Amino acid sequence: MIRKIAILGATGSIGKSTLDLVDRNRDRFQVTAVTAATNVEALAEIVRRTGAGLAVVADERRFEALAELLVGTNCRAAAGEAALLEAAAGEAELVIAAIVGCAGLKPVMAAVELGRTVALANKEALVTAGALMIDAAAASGAVLLPVDSEHNAIFQCLAGSRAEDVSRIILTASGGPFRTASAETISAATPAQAVAHPNWSMGAKISVDSATLMNKGLELIEAHFLFGLPSAQLDVLIHPQSVVHSLVEFVDGSVLAHLGSPDMRIPIAYALAWPERMDTPAQRLDLTSIARLDFDAPDLQRFPALRLAREALEAGGAAPVVLNAANEVAVASFLAGTIRFPDIAMVVQEALNAPGYDAPTSISDVLEIDRVTRARARSMMQASCT
Amino acid sequence: MIRKIAILGATGSIGKSTLDLVDRNRDRFQVTAVTAATNVEALAEIVRRTGAGLAVVADERRFEALAELLVGTNCRAAAGEAALLEAAAGEAELVIAAIVGCAGLKPVMAAVELGRTVALANKEALVTAGALMIDAAAASGAVLLPVDSEHNAIFQCLAGSRAEDVSRIILTASGGPFRTASAETISAATPAQAVAHPNWSMGAKISVDSATLMNKGLELIEAHFLFGLPSAQLDVLIHPQSVVHSLVEFVDGSVLAHLGSPDMRIPIAYALAWPERMDTPAQRLDLTSIARLDFDAPDLQRFPALRLAREALEAGGAAPVVLNAANEVAVASFLAGTIRFPDIAMVVQEALNAPGYDAPTSISDVLEIDRVTRARARSMMQASCT
Repeated sequence: MIRKIAILGATGSIGKSTLDLVDRNRDRFQVTAVTAATNVEALAEIVRRTGAGLAVVADERRFEALAELLVGTNCRAAAGEAALLEAAAGEAELVIAAIVGCAGLKPVMAAVELGRTVALANKEALVTAGALMIDAAAASGAVLLPVDSEHNAIFQCLAGSRAEDVSRIILTASGGPFRTASAETISAATPAQAVAHPNWSMGAKISVDSATLMNKGLELIEAHFLFGLPSAQLDVLIHPQSVVHSLVEFVDGSVLAHLGSPDMRIPIAYALAWPERMDTPAQRLDLTSIARLDFDAPDLQRFPALRLAREALEAGGAAPVVLNAANEVAVASFLAGTIRFPDIAMVVQEALNAPGYDAPTSISDVLEIDRVTRARARSMMQASCT
Repeated sequence: MIRKIAILGATGSIGKSTLDLVDRNRDRFQVTAVTAATNVEALAEIVRRTGAGLAVVADERRFEALAELLVGTNCRAAAGEAALLEAAAGEAELVIAAIVGCAGLKPVMAAVELGRTVALANKEALVTAGALMIDAAAASGAVLLPVDSEHNAIFQCLAGSRAEDVSRIILTASGGPFRTASAETISAATPAQAVAHPNWSMGAKISVDSATLMNKGLELIEAHFLFGLPSAQLDVLIHPQSVVHSLVEFVDGSVLAHLGSPDMRIPIAYALAWPERMDTPAQRLDLTSIARLDFDAPDLQRFPALRLAREALEAGGAAPVVLNAANEVAVASFLAGTIRFPDIAMVVQEALNAPGYDAPTSISDVLEIDRVTRARARSMMQASCT
């Protein structure tokens, strides 16, 4: 049976890996819709490869260019937010949600509300709108398949388990480039040092999040919503080799772990084939050559971002939205050279301390809290820089 | 709902751990029958603890003593092989098969043929009669729940998976006391050195099997029958900390592993509660304090028993019966001081080289091949000692 899929964010890293797997399994998948933020050239090439019937560019100014590139194909060109929602809510039964940032929220919610199976690579969906997404999925019967390697690992370990049999979820973290660095060295960290991730090749923003451990904090929040466990049953374990992607402890003392090579095609293939599995060209794990795995507790003194994320998770309501927005603005400022590395956590801390918001009750609420928090954080940083 | 269980081998290590869990969950389990090889005092005490209705001692000479100890209880005393079969084939829906050695074969088969759920701790059932047991289970609908920590680990990792999604099963081995020893040191190994297992507290025979790696070889054979994979998809990985109990690799490159403290109550609880789970008092795994896990390939030069076991698995038919019987006799001779440590594998090799038997088609065939092989191996050793 051919599965129809829509790829939201087809030109990014997750989109490319998805397309690689689809190319290898033409008999199993039919791509019905693809979207991109701005890169219409890459999008048009994907249309020619896949035969998708709808191509959407988020940036409306790129519509004419896209339409021109699609002349001679059977693919309709579209642009803007409404068209993104159309791609998300189309005929595809499986929606790959790989749009980066809050731009992905409304399309993901559209797919969830229609009860689609959603392969979730957009972190913001759960970090900033977790309660809304989970409630909507419960109401519609949508299945959320996490594509993030940690949450996909946990999902695999949980397969077939009853919720009451789970005692703890343990997210692994590489520890980032400053895992063994002194507090002094971390204080003086440059953007170049911060983006040098030891195991995975990632974008600059997420690499800085990995260096502060905010990435793991955001994942704690995602895990809370995805798997329905309170903060007290969610742990973080430093594991520098990133071979164990996460673990689940059960009430009997059993611990199941997911291990694998650092290849995103593994979790993507799991989402594509679920509840079955499919072959991937990912390198097989060879523990004999890896030889050694290390584990350590995270240091919340040197990495306060992880503590802040847990506090936001426990506070609930708008706090995770504020955490995420303030962090994004602070990381951008750090990468631009206008604040120091430790200032990232300080900006987030101040944003969380600022007068609060009511818990969001819609995606529009989330986007508004996100917008206001970003503006506040920017002016706060400007004030302290002058 | 109360689950009725029979414990075959109630006074041994697995029996004791089972009873500990039953004691903690009186509302979930009712022990209907218990058996022991000879220890009627311990058996009578178990009857008083559990209220079991049938107590069987395998050694018929101990019947009078058992009957006397049970005066004043509502428990019927019985003895001998027919009574063991009665205990296995009674009203219990779950049979804990923890009789040591080939004495367990007929009782296990009786439970399997009746379609019971069998928690299998008797290694011989699968090593020597694997094909017969699996065929009988397929015919009757019996479920075999492995209690051995490695196979239980694999069973947990496989939960809910399709057979065609599994690419490899990887059994971990501690490597035993001679893991890093030179071939010369191993040649001169004493029984005291061989039984000093680094991680688990076990009996002398199985400790020697762990030192030769024959134990892992026997487990390869068990895994072959339990999980239906050929030799080429079954691997062994040396892992000295024994924290990872085994792993399963899937076609997408995912690897699931089961980890836990070295406490047999974890796999026993899994079998008792399956397909759910239940609490155990087993210590929770703390990877932060364990800090490090190591992995290495097994050395078939220094540990030829593992190679012999794989050859027996691949030869099939009677070969695993011969392997197991010759090994038991050789280990007993080594423990008695009449042969050297490397002679164990040589005795097994010679037994496998001897004129073969037809593949067994019944438990009686298995027992006959076992008996003849033991006699041959003993006379072979006597011949070479004179």
